Amino acid sequence: MENCMGTKSKDVSLKDLSNRLAEFAQARGWDQHHSPRNLLLALVGEVGELSEIFQWKGEVGKGLPNWSADEKEHLEDEVSDVLLYLVRLADVCGLDL
Amino acid sequence: MENCMGTKSKDVSLKDLSNRLAEFAQARGWDQHHSPRNLLLALVGEVGELSEIFQWKGEVGKGLPNWSADEKEHLEDEVSDVLLYLVRLADVCGLDL
Amino acid sequence: MENCMGTKSKDVSLKDLSNRLAEFAQARGWDQHHSPRNLLLALVGEVGELSEIFQWKGEVGKGLPNWSADEKEHLEDEVSDVLLYLVRLADVCGLDL
Amino acid sequence: MENCMGTKSKDVSLKDLSNRLAEFAQARGWDQHHSPRNLLLALVGEVGELSEIFQWKGEVGKGLPNWSADEKEHLEDEVSDVLLYLVRLADVCGLDL
Repeated sequence: MENCMGTKSKDVSLKDLSNRLAEFAQARGWDQHHSPRNLLLALVGEVGELSEIFQWKGEVGKGLPNWSADEKEHLEDEVSDVLLYLVRLADVCGLDL
Repeated sequence: MENCMGTKSKDVSLKDLSNRLAEFAQARGWDQHHSPRNLLLALVGEVGELSEIFQWKGEVGKGLPNWSADEKEHLEDEVSDVLLYLVRLADVCGLDL
Repeated sequence: MENCMGTKSKDVSLKDLSNRLAEFAQARGWDQHHSPRNLLLALVGEVGELSEIFQWKGEVGKGLPNWSADEKEHLEDEVSDVLLYLVRLADVCGLDL
Repeated sequence: MENCMGTKSKDVSLKDLSNRLAEFAQARGWDQHHSPRNLLLALVGEVGELSEIFQWKGEVGKGLPNWSADEKEHLEDEVSDVLLYLVRLADVCGLDL
C-alpha cells in the first residue's frame, strides 16, 4: 500500500509512519488544522469513502474475486487514507502508538 | 430540506416519506440493491460526506455563523441523504417506523 | 418506532419531531452541549452502534428473517437514536428541515 | 499502544501486525466471520466508539489537556481497535499492505 509519501506502509513501523506524517504536515503548514476533532472527522470521512466502495456489492468474498485492478487500487487508496488519519490522530493526542 | 423527490421533508410524516422512497426505488429498479447491509453502508457513506463538511472547521457555532449559502445548501443535501437512507433501511428491515 | 419521548415517530412530521426534541433538550439543560460538531460525533457514535448489530451477520435478507424480537427491538432503538441526533443536528444548524 | 496480543504496535511493522492478527483469528476460529463487509462494519462500530469519547467535549486541544489517565487509556484502546480491524480488512481483501 503506497501512501501519500510514496512509501509502502508495510516497510515501516507505525512509529516511523507517525513521524513522517508529522513532518509532512508541518512542512505544508497543515499542523494548525490537525486538531484531534478535525482529524477524527476527517477519519470518519475516509471511512465513509471506504464504505461507498462496498455499498452496492452485496456480500464480497475474501480476496475480492472479480474486482478489477482499478477497484482494488481505489480500495487500497481509501484504506491508506483511513490509516494515515488514524496515525495522525493518535500522534496529536499524544498517544504512545 | 428538499429531497430527491422535490418534497420538503418537513411537510410529510416519516411513514409518508418511507412510502414515497419505496415507490421511488421500485420505479427505478433499485429495489434489488436495497438490502439491509447495502443500505447501511450507503448510510455510512453519507455520514462520511456530512463529516467532510465539518472536518477542517474547528468548533462551529449554532446557526452556522459565517457559512455561505452554498455551504448551507450542501449541508442540507447531505443531511437529507442520510435521512433518506435511514428511512429506507428501516423500511426494508420491516421496522414500524 | 418509539423514541425517547414515548412517541411513535411515524405519527409526527419531522418539524414536530424537531420541535419536541428541542424542548426536551432545553428542559434538561442539554442545550449547551448540543453544538453542531458535538451532535455530529454523537450521530457517528449511534451509526457505529447500528453497524455493530449487523457486523457479524453476513448478508441479511429483507425483513430480517430469523432475527429475534429482541434483536429487532434493539435495531429499532438504534435507528431511532440516529434519527434523533440527525434531526437535532439539522435544528441547531438552522436548516429548514 | 498495546493491542489484544500484548504487543506494543509501534514495535512492529504493519506486515508483522497483519500476520499476527491472521494467526490470532485462525487460532480462535474467527476466520469464518472475517469477511470483508463483516470487518468493515466492525471497523465502523469501532470508529463510533472512538467518536463517543469525543462527542460531548467541545473542541479538544492537542495532547488532550485535562484528560484523565483513564480517559487516555480508553482512547488508546479504541484507536487500537480501529487499527486492528483496518489491518484485518486489508489482509482479507488481499491488499499488499
